[in-house]
Amino acid sequence: MSAAKDGSWFTEISSLWPGTGLALKVDEVLFKGRSDFQDVAVVKTQAFGTVLILDGAIQCTDRDEFSYQEMIAHLPACALPAPPKKALVVGGGDGGVLRELSRHASLEEIHIAEIDGMVIDVSKKHFPQMAAGYTDPRVKVLVHVCDGIKFVQDAAEGTYDLIVVDSSDPVGPAEVLFQKPFFDAMHRALKPGGIVCTQAESLWYHLEIIKSLAAMCAEVFQGGAVQYAFTTIPTYPSGQIGFMICTKAGGSAPLDAREPRQPLPVTPEGRDYPPLRYYNHDVHRAAFVLPTFAKEALGPSLTY
Amino acid sequence: MSAAKDGSWFTEISSLWPGTGLALKVDEVLFKGRSDFQDVAVVKTQAFGTVLILDGAIQCTDRDEFSYQEMIAHLPACALPAPPKKALVVGGGDGGVLRELSRHASLEEIHIAEIDGMVIDVSKKHFPQMAAGYTDPRVKVLVHVCDGIKFVQDAAEGTYDLIVVDSSDPVGPAEVLFQKPFFDAMHRALKPGGIVCTQAESLWYHLEIIKSLAAMCAEVFQGGAVQYAFTTIPTYPSGQIGFMICTKAGGSAPLDAREPRQPLPVTPEGRDYPPLRYYNHDVHRAAFVLPTFAKEALGPSLTY
Repeated sequence: MSAAKDGSWFTEISSLWPGTGLALKVDEVLFKGRSDFQDVAVVKTQAFGTVLILDGAIQCTDRDEFSYQEMIAHLPACALPAPPKKALVVGGGDGGVLRELSRHASLEEIHIAEIDGMVIDVSKKHFPQMAAGYTDPRVKVLVHVCDGIKFVQDAAEGTYDLIVVDSSDPVGPAEVLFQKPFFDAMHRALKPGGIVCTQAESLWYHLEIIKSLAAMCAEVFQGGAVQYAFTTIPTYPSGQIGFMICTKAGGSAPLDAREPRQPLPVTPEGRDYPPLRYYNHDVHRAAFVLPTFAKEALGPSLTY
Repeated sequence: MSAAKDGSWFTEISSLWPGTGLALKVDEVLFKGRSDFQDVAVVKTQAFGTVLILDGAIQCTDRDEFSYQEMIAHLPACALPAPPKKALVVGGGDGGVLRELSRHASLEEIHIAEIDGMVIDVSKKHFPQMAAGYTDPRVKVLVHVCDGIKFVQDAAEGTYDLIVVDSSDPVGPAEVLFQKPFFDAMHRALKPGGIVCTQAESLWYHLEIIKSLAAMCAEVFQGGAVQYAFTTIPTYPSGQIGFMICTKAGGSAPLDAREPRQPLPVTPEGRDYPPLRYYNHDVHRAAFVLPTFAKEALGPSLTY
C-alpha cells in the first residue's frame, strides 16, 4: 500500500533506483486501493497537481504528463512515411496516449489493451485532461481491459501501423512487456513498415536494462530498424525517460525514425484538449541524439 | 547546517523548487563546515558517490558531474569561430570546469574567480577527478579566491574570449551573478565576438527566472546573440540544467552558438582525466532545441 499520507512527504523508493528517490509534498490522498494487479494511489501534491502512483512508483502528474504522452505517441506516429490508420496502445490506462494519438486525423481505429480496469476508472475520475482521450467521437476507440501480451498474440498478423507500449517498470505486472515473446508478438501484429514505440526507462539509471532490450529488439526486428530516443520529465527517475522505437522491415530500406515525415499533430475539432506543449519537429530530431556514454553503450544494437 | 547524517536519507528542500526534492541515501558524512559565505557539506552516497552540498543544495556528484561540466565548458568553447586563448571561470571552485577547459589546446590562460576558498579546499580533498583541473601544467591557471563580480569589473576591457559562470542558485552568495551589473561587466570584459555561458536553472522549474534573465541578456548583448541550451543531469532539480549563452557583437553577424565550430576537445597529454562522456557535436546541436512550452516562453528574447 502506498505510504502517502495527507500533509506528509512521499518519497519514491525502488530497487530500480537504489539510494535515490523523488520526494513530493502530498496535500491530500484522493484515492487508495488495491486492484487485482497492484496498489493504486491518487494524491494531490503541492508541486505537480494530481499524481497517479502504482505500486509506489509515480506514473503521471497533471503538470508534466504532456512530455511523456506527446513524445511516446508522436515520435512513432510522425516518423511513418504514410499517415497511420490503425493503432494499438498497450497499457496507457490513464488515457493520455489515446488523447495524443487522437490528434492524428488519419487514424481510423485506436485499440487499447489495459490490464487494470481500476487505472482506467481512477483516471476518468481524477485525471480528466488525460482521460479525455477515451471520448474522441471521431476515432473508434476499442477499450479492452485485458492482458496486453495475450491481446497482441491473438491479433491477426499485419494488423497495426503503430503500437505504443505505455507500461510501468519491468517489475510487477509490466515485466512481460519487456520480454522477447511480447516483442515477437508485436512484430507479427505490425503491418510491414509498421512501427512500435515502448517505454524504455532512463539512460542514467538503467543503461544495462536498455542495452539488453536493444539487443533483443535487434534480433526481433531484423531487416527493420531499432532506435532509441528520450524526453525530459521531472517526475520520472533521473528526470528523463526513454523510448525504444522499432520498425518492421517493409520498405526499400529500414525506416530512420529520426526524421519526422507527418505534419504536426492537431487537436480534433470540438475536443477540450490542452495544446501541444512539448513535441515539435525539431524536438523530434533532437530526441534521438544520445550523450556519448549512451551512444557507446547502445550503438552496437542500434540501426542508425 | 546540512541535515545530512550517516545512514540517513538527505532530501534537497528549497524555496526554489517548493513541494519537491531529490532524496539521497547518505552512507557517510565526510565533511561539514561553515565558510564565510555558506554551509559546506561533503557526503558519500549510495547512488551517486561523493556529493558536494552548499547551503543544502546539491552542487555536484561523482557519478553525473561530467554532464554539467562538459556542457557548460564545451558548448561556448566549441561554438567560437576561432580557438579561444583566454578564458575566465567565475565560481566553479570544484575545478570541474577547469578540467574541461583544459581540454582546449588553444587556451593559453585560464583564470578562475571563486569566492569561497573552502569549496576549493574540500574539492581538492574529496573530489580529485574534478580538482584535477587545478593542476594542468600546460595552461596558466590563475586562481583568485575573490568576489567574481568585482574581479570581472576590474578586468581590462576586451580581455576574454570566453567566460563560464559556474554558480549556485540565485539565492545566497550567487544572487548577484544573475543580475545586470554582473552581465554588464562581463560584456565589457569580453573581446568583440567573445562568448559567455552561465548556469541558468531548469526550464521545468524556473521558467519565469529564465525569461527575466533572457530579457536582461538581450538588453546587455545588443548586436550580439542570446541563446539557451540545456543538459540532462539526475541530481539537479527536475533532472536537467540550462545555460544562457550570450555572444558579444563582433563579427559580421551575431554568432549562432548552435553550430559547433571547434574540433572535439581532447585530454592534454599526461593528464589523468576521465574521457568525454556526454559532449559530442550532435549533442551540442541538440542541446539548443527547446520543448514547445519553453520555446514559446523564451523565444521573444532569443536571437535564434
